[in-house]
Amino acid sequence: MRTLAREIQEQIGRTVELCGWVHRIRNLGGITFVLLRDRSGLVQLVYEGDPGLSLESVIRVRGTVATNEKAPGGFEVQVGATPATDATPATDATPATDATGGRDHATTEILGPAVADLPVAINQDLDKVGLEAILDNRIVTLRNPRIRRIFALQSDLVRYFAEFLREEDFTEIKSSKLIGTGTEGGTGLFAVDYFGDRVYLAQSPQFYKQAMVASGMERVFEIGAAYRAEKHDTPRHLNEYVSLDVEMGFIESESDLMDLETRLLGYIFDAVRRDHSETLREYGTDLPTSREFGETPRVSHDEARSIIKERTGKTAFEINPEGERELCDWAQEFHGVEAVFVYGFPRKKRPFYTYPEGLKTRSFDLLFRGLEITTGGQRIHRYETLLETLPRFGLTEEGLGDYCSIFKYGCPPHGGFAIGLERLTQKILNLQNVKEASLFPRDRKRVRP
Amino acid sequence: MRTLAREIQEQIGRTVELCGWVHRIRNLGGITFVLLRDRSGLVQLVYEGDPGLSLESVIRVRGTVATNEKAPGGFEVQVGATPATDATPATDATPATDATGGRDHATTEILGPAVADLPVAINQDLDKVGLEAILDNRIVTLRNPRIRRIFALQSDLVRYFAEFLREEDFTEIKSSKLIGTGTEGGTGLFAVDYFGDRVYLAQSPQFYKQAMVASGMERVFEIGAAYRAEKHDTPRHLNEYVSLDVEMGFIESESDLMDLETRLLGYIFDAVRRDHSETLREYGTDLPTSREFGETPRVSHDEARSIIKERTGKTAFEINPEGERELCDWAQEFHGVEAVFVYGFPRKKRPFYTYPEGLKTRSFDLLFRGLEITTGGQRIHRYETLLETLPRFGLTEEGLGDYCSIFKYGCPPHGGFAIGLERLTQKILNLQNVKEASLFPRDRKRVRP
Repeated sequence: MRTLAREIQEQIGRTVELCGWVHRIRNLGGITFVLLRDRSGLVQLVYEGDPGLSLESVIRVRGTVATNEKAPGGFEVQVGATPATDATPATDATPATDATGGRDHATTEILGPAVADLPVAINQDLDKVGLEAILDNRIVTLRNPRIRRIFALQSDLVRYFAEFLREEDFTEIKSSKLIGTGTEGGTGLFAVDYFGDRVYLAQSPQFYKQAMVASGMERVFEIGAAYRAEKHDTPRHLNEYVSLDVEMGFIESESDLMDLETRLLGYIFDAVRRDHSETLREYGTDLPTSREFGETPRVSHDEARSIIKERTGKTAFEINPEGERELCDWAQEFHGVEAVFVYGFPRKKRPFYTYPEGLKTRSFDLLFRGLEITTGGQRIHRYETLLETLPRFGLTEEGLGDYCSIFKYGCPPHGGFAIGLERLTQKILNLQNVKEASLFPRDRKRVRP
Repeated sequence: MRTLAREIQEQIGRTVELCGWVHRIRNLGGITFVLLRDRSGLVQLVYEGDPGLSLESVIRVRGTVATNEKAPGGFEVQVGATPATDATPATDATPATDATGGRDHATTEILGPAVADLPVAINQDLDKVGLEAILDNRIVTLRNPRIRRIFALQSDLVRYFAEFLREEDFTEIKSSKLIGTGTEGGTGLFAVDYFGDRVYLAQSPQFYKQAMVASGMERVFEIGAAYRAEKHDTPRHLNEYVSLDVEMGFIESESDLMDLETRLLGYIFDAVRRDHSETLREYGTDLPTSREFGETPRVSHDEARSIIKERTGKTAFEINPEGERELCDWAQEFHGVEAVFVYGFPRKKRPFYTYPEGLKTRSFDLLFRGLEITTGGQRIHRYETLLETLPRFGLTEEGLGDYCSIFKYGCPPHGGFAIGLERLTQKILNLQNVKEASLFPRDRKRVRP
């Protein structure tokens, strides 16, 4: 019966069986300290003599738990002197028969030997290793506990997102990522050879989530991949990312969506503070509580430009990355939260399906810690309004495939938004580059590992 | 303040505001009965005279709740005589100010008019409409309550899957679907034009889930799209599907995986029986309880062939669809459950990475109601064993990209399995074709809607 690193404090004086990776080896002549890493944390093993282990080998070890103030966590496992044995595949299959697995032939078995030198020393601070080297060696660098924490957090962000929305009567959908035509204008799409036909990878589930609202589900969300064939190379862009999409029927205006997103992110932030406080501490950051995040101001696009002008002296025709940072600084100073909704974007700056209001639209962005993490808005829900709108954008009903048919048969007023999972992770942990928040990021030059 | 159809029984005698789709209209001269459909169900509206509504238009209506034994559910809403008003976009934005929205200018507003005739009568039984017509008109046919139930169930299958695994200390991952090379042999891949380079859509997250186990996460799952460029046209295949992937370190053999999957599916079946009993009833089916599913027998590939031969008189060199049905019938007869694990597949029939055991492998399939819904097994976790294996399959380390590097730096014994979400949904509801269980299925001829 295996014991995890986090559980040994309950086993003082007992013999336990531990499994994990050889994280660090310190040989002090007669005694060797080995840090063992498993999914739950680190634990110190103490060997008499040299057990002959190599870094990152996967071992199974039996020993006795003792307290030791100097050991990490205050406990250690004394393993004894028996040398390590390389388990053969046959003994791998021996079923465990008692608490220590019935294996008294050795105190340490090598279950999976490391047979090559590590390309990067992963038991050290990787801050000095460049991002490209970290990503080139992703299979190895993900073993670094600090890096792995990013993805333990990200895993839970997905959970919190779904939890909150299900509680609000939203249904999770899974839509196709292979589309015949784009709804976002047709540029920036990756082409796929589909049995000799040319189709595309979806930039967003826009069409499908609107279709599902109109189908009567009313409230849907999707967690799925989105693709942008854009040649950007910035710390805020990925060519493949996870989009957290929300779409909701029977709204009065985009205010309902900003209300929903404020509560959603407040819920997520409270949960992160509750479950990942150690990670926040390790990354030297913190999050607003749901109460604090509830104070997020909402400014119109025009007001936003005035604020930027006032603070920088520069006239901004649109809100660029510098302006986004400035707006978040302003929100921090005057509202105590580093976030701001900007609504009322001009029609020209938003996709054709955005609900118009004069020359403006019922759309918004959410900026958080200097970065746009959400785009959202109310959509046109009347077929006639849509038909009037298409020519302004140089589009035709035929060119949009089945899109317009959503609105022919009765569609409620609706809207939604999308949060980039990697950007949200990046901003929560204050990571410099969004690629740090993607397990296997894809950019113009990178499609491996 | 909006009331949902399912909530009206708590509002007898009160005036409520309802929103939804005009599902059915029955004009009896002086009185018109309108069935209103919202995300929660159906409710009968009673109008004096003819309100002039068209099927599927989206309306907002005010009326008084009354009991009526003859109405569906036993309640109805009496709307009165005021004719329907087509709300202009301006009034859409009027904020609700009291319980009935402060709109006393009309009892019925048309929020989203249906402006075209329905291609399929969605308020009727669609059994007589062929599957191709249902899928061609998916945007409309998803409005059919019976069809929509499939996806309400599917949404929860995703939830139950994640819930169970998180409880067992699994971490959810999101891996890239754009890969440089295939791990499944290279055939059956869709090619993507990636900034002028040729890359592929992943057939499975096999590489990534193994990498994450080796990285120290130990236990991971992924819910994501998988792609198969195979020209099959059967009731059991899709070219794009949602794969529920599981991978787990520190197993002794594939038995641990069958144990895990038995508990996982038992959990899911109990939850479906609890939350979706009405859907099971509507589809004329039921599910084994977790206790019943725990009796699922495990037979070796050789035993499975003997059983098939004994029952059909035919010698089966491999287990074909007919054999799968026969095995499930056998399991039902002798173990009281329509499911069976088949383990010990020959090496030639499994991918190169499968853990060998003589001429056999530590792999398994799970058959449920006559269909293979899972493939799984232990994987090779030692670099040297892998290098010995590759030539037998005509593969090289270089040809597999980064795959082999997972095993160079210490990897625990591990294995996993994958469940096709659509196949699981299909079998739970006894649907004839797996395409019925995909919102927007993709096959050789279909990439729309």
